[in-house]
Amino acid sequence: MKLYNYFRSSASFRVRIALELKGLPYEYVPVHLVKGEHQQAGYAAVSPAMLVPSLETDAGEHLGQSMAIIEYLDETHPEPALLPPDPLARARVRALAQLIACEIHPLNNLRVLKYLVRALKVDEAAKTAWYRHWVREGLEAFERELAQLPAGRFCFGDTPTLADCCLVPQIFNGRRFDVSFDGLPRTMAAFDACMALPAFQRAQPSSCPDNEA
Amino acid sequence: MKLYNYFRSSASFRVRIALELKGLPYEYVPVHLVKGEHQQAGYAAVSPAMLVPSLETDAGEHLGQSMAIIEYLDETHPEPALLPPDPLARARVRALAQLIACEIHPLNNLRVLKYLVRALKVDEAAKTAWYRHWVREGLEAFERELAQLPAGRFCFGDTPTLADCCLVPQIFNGRRFDVSFDGLPRTMAAFDACMALPAFQRAQPSSCPDNEA
Repeated sequence: MKLYNYFRSSASFRVRIALELKGLPYEYVPVHLVKGEHQQAGYAAVSPAMLVPSLETDAGEHLGQSMAIIEYLDETHPEPALLPPDPLARARVRALAQLIACEIHPLNNLRVLKYLVRALKVDEAAKTAWYRHWVREGLEAFERELAQLPAGRFCFGDTPTLADCCLVPQIFNGRRFDVSFDGLPRTMAAFDACMALPAFQRAQPSSCPDNEA
Repeated sequence: MKLYNYFRSSASFRVRIALELKGLPYEYVPVHLVKGEHQQAGYAAVSPAMLVPSLETDAGEHLGQSMAIIEYLDETHPEPALLPPDPLARARVRALAQLIACEIHPLNNLRVLKYLVRALKVDEAAKTAWYRHWVREGLEAFERELAQLPAGRFCFGDTPTLADCCLVPQIFNGRRFDVSFDGLPRTMAAFDACMALPAFQRAQPSSCPDNEA
């Protein structure tokens, strides 16, 4: 498999975590978002939507959207499972993942920040305030959801799931903008449990071949 | 089952479609977003994240996040299926759904528009431009993805899927802001095929008990 992705892309990071948790080898194909490489005509063959990540399967199929890719990996390589077997539990894990992927991350990705600055003439301070507002508000909602669930080492239970694949990159993103993580005990405990695992460490931006930090 | 939702909420509409497609009866519990009913303390017991929709199962469990709810319904009430059986096909359907639910809709929901106006002092014209920009750009990406798939009556194949549950509310939202749908033949053909079905008609905002139009 090949993963077209970018070291700092949160959605790319989610898929890298899933690949590492499952021990699946893959070719890392860097796509430099800041240089606009995803917007070049040739990339349409990899991702018609012109987005990262895109997974190229061994059969040459291209798959987009990080949560869809992770569920595909889970269905085709079931061990270790990234979703629990019970439908109610699966719904809880998916809802946690979507609370990040649908409520937080879309508001602070690169093209949105660019629009704020270029089209809406938002200044640096207001851009940062926007970023922190959505991350903080979203993580507070995430924490309240976790607080309703039985205690576990990770977001849901004692093994990493799709929810952890989404949480960890969001915390990395929040750190870049100095978001406060105070008062989020369950969330940050899950993050710490994840980052103690080599799979999460290997997937992180600083471990990527295109890392610029 | 009970569905806590709002007639004009796009994410609520997605779940209503799924319930109607599966012929599942449910109690409609209106939550008036514009009046802020989802932000009142009592609602935390229904949705810790303070969001609609929330599905209350017959066992009294509350489930959030529309795509997670729809997959739960699909796993617990498999007929008619809203996801195909093959992992690659499932990934395609989920990616289409997420292209709307993660790339378009989060940018034009009510709380984001409010932030633009209140915190960023964006005027009405710039707010509308923002809305149209993300819907149009997102639907163009959606169209390019559809164009890579075999022809079918709906977004994926000849029966409605999770992707159609997400597409239809997004088109309704776009219409409210006069977004142009020119040059989106596959997308709009799928929308028209959906709206010819009674299930989609029954789920639409104008059919809801809390409809104000």
